[in-house]
Amino acid sequence: MEEKKLAVVALGGNAILRGDQKGTVEEQNQNVRETLENLIYLVKEGYNLIITHGNGPQVGNFLMSDDAGVKMYGLAPSTLDMCVAYSQGQIGYMIERNLRNVLHEHGLQRHVVSMISQVVVDEHDPALKNPTKRVGKIYTREEADKLAADHGWIFKEEIKVEGGWRRVVPSPVPIDFKNASLVERMARSGSIVITGGGGGIPVYIDKDGMLQPLEGVIDKDLASAMIANRVKADELYILTDVPYIYKDYKKPTEQVLEFLDYADAKKYLDEGMFGEGSMAPKIRACLAFVEKGGQKAVITEATKLEDRRYGSKITLHYD
Amino acid sequence: MEEKKLAVVALGGNAILRGDQKGTVEEQNQNVRETLENLIYLVKEGYNLIITHGNGPQVGNFLMSDDAGVKMYGLAPSTLDMCVAYSQGQIGYMIERNLRNVLHEHGLQRHVVSMISQVVVDEHDPALKNPTKRVGKIYTREEADKLAADHGWIFKEEIKVEGGWRRVVPSPVPIDFKNASLVERMARSGSIVITGGGGGIPVYIDKDGMLQPLEGVIDKDLASAMIANRVKADELYILTDVPYIYKDYKKPTEQVLEFLDYADAKKYLDEGMFGEGSMAPKIRACLAFVEKGGQKAVITEATKLEDRRYGSKITLHYD
Repeated sequence: MEEKKLAVVALGGNAILRGDQKGTVEEQNQNVRETLENLIYLVKEGYNLIITHGNGPQVGNFLMSDDAGVKMYGLAPSTLDMCVAYSQGQIGYMIERNLRNVLHEHGLQRHVVSMISQVVVDEHDPALKNPTKRVGKIYTREEADKLAADHGWIFKEEIKVEGGWRRVVPSPVPIDFKNASLVERMARSGSIVITGGGGGIPVYIDKDGMLQPLEGVIDKDLASAMIANRVKADELYILTDVPYIYKDYKKPTEQVLEFLDYADAKKYLDEGMFGEGSMAPKIRACLAFVEKGGQKAVITEATKLEDRRYGSKITLHYD
Repeated sequence: MEEKKLAVVALGGNAILRGDQKGTVEEQNQNVRETLENLIYLVKEGYNLIITHGNGPQVGNFLMSDDAGVKMYGLAPSTLDMCVAYSQGQIGYMIERNLRNVLHEHGLQRHVVSMISQVVVDEHDPALKNPTKRVGKIYTREEADKLAADHGWIFKEEIKVEGGWRRVVPSPVPIDFKNASLVERMARSGSIVITGGGGGIPVYIDKDGMLQPLEGVIDKDLASAMIANRVKADELYILTDVPYIYKDYKKPTEQVLEFLDYADAKKYLDEGMFGEGSMAPKIRACLAFVEKGGQKAVITEATKLEDRRYGSKITLHYD
């Protein structure tokens, strides 16, 4: 019997909460459900699946509530590792419950397991000394100064809002994740495993071998690629809000990039063709995946999964 | 080779956040770590372990932050199933990370897996029509009326605070949990599995076989007993803040109840000897466990686990 292919599917933020939505529980469940409906194709095609997901909008909302709870009721503030953990609980549950229902509607029987996921970074990652990722709400200078004094947070001036300051945290490179062998075994035995949510809860291993929490966020696409490599997945799907990646996106010379080998994708990336806040990290994740043995990385929209004509496919070499 | 014993250990709320604490992240991690240190004895004794936990103080704080976030920033309010999911992420992560560290310090190697956990209740459970469990903050009559109109929440007058109203939600009986067979398999193969957090995320199965969320909370001790029965655990440990249960607790005639058979425990329970908000649900959980095949249920303090002289042991029959 040929072993089934193992794929890691990374759900983008918009798969759960779109920018134009307020973020009610109903909206989020509806979005998740619609996205998961598209994954049924992969299940029917016989793939074993690991699902990862973003958490940007959810953590943004947590940080707002947290701030409000501190100010209004004097609650103790949360840390970022805890916020990622909350979001893994919340989104993991939404994906698991809705996926069970979607599978049931299609008459498919698979275990679905949602795991809390710690992703290990290097304590000496240079990113830790150079925080760049903006998180949480926009504060006044006075508020920012007080939070910096109280918690050691670092703030940068907000470009879009005059007089506004925003907390910045490091975004270190994911190097490993806990329970990798268990996740691989479960996925290869047919369970659909939800893990690596929000890029994983960032931890590092100190000199005594202890797992320590880290105030940072890990890019969810890079984490997904790392997870895919660690479990020796065959394919990585990064789902986003466009059906392809493009050369000269939104310019008159725009061109669909359907098949890309490592060298070309790397060249375009180095030329700065892909937006740093959007496509560039996804391309980097795809390159990391195929570089370390992955067969194929695909960037596309969830709704286009079933039609294999769509999607940009990145491989190491095109023969 | 004799198979290892399987035990379910239920951590009480005070194992994570004590009533006299503000609930900082540091305090919670410290409490969790100290509690887990006591579980090492069971690991060394050769038990396979499933860990469940309460979430009362944490969900209380979530509901406060949520209320503040709605009022201060106009965020969409959360639902109770989502709050339980947050707390499973948060507490599951704290237990997993700290347990990994404690095991490492003791030179012990075990997988530790924290799973999001949905607990199934009966859609026709009479408790759903009679909400009794008080959750969230105390509101004024005006606020309560508005929330009742907006969300269909039910409020009861607060006894302790004049003019205060508090939301009440049902606490239905747990009848099953998702991933039971996977959890059993993982635990019996030596992984320490954290599941059933906060009594589990309450869901019911509708007439179409779909899992639907439920606005309620499940008693964590009853859920722990149900989980213990479903995985055919040998022993159930309910950890609390007293070393024993007592007859005539805090009265001159107080008496330690160290060994209790089903009939006696049931009699005392029916006589109303145990507090409804404290010991009674724990006794009920122990009775449910031994009634359905569990060998022994123990109620004690975490710090007393290692000294087997402590702890009230409940079994079906004492010969």
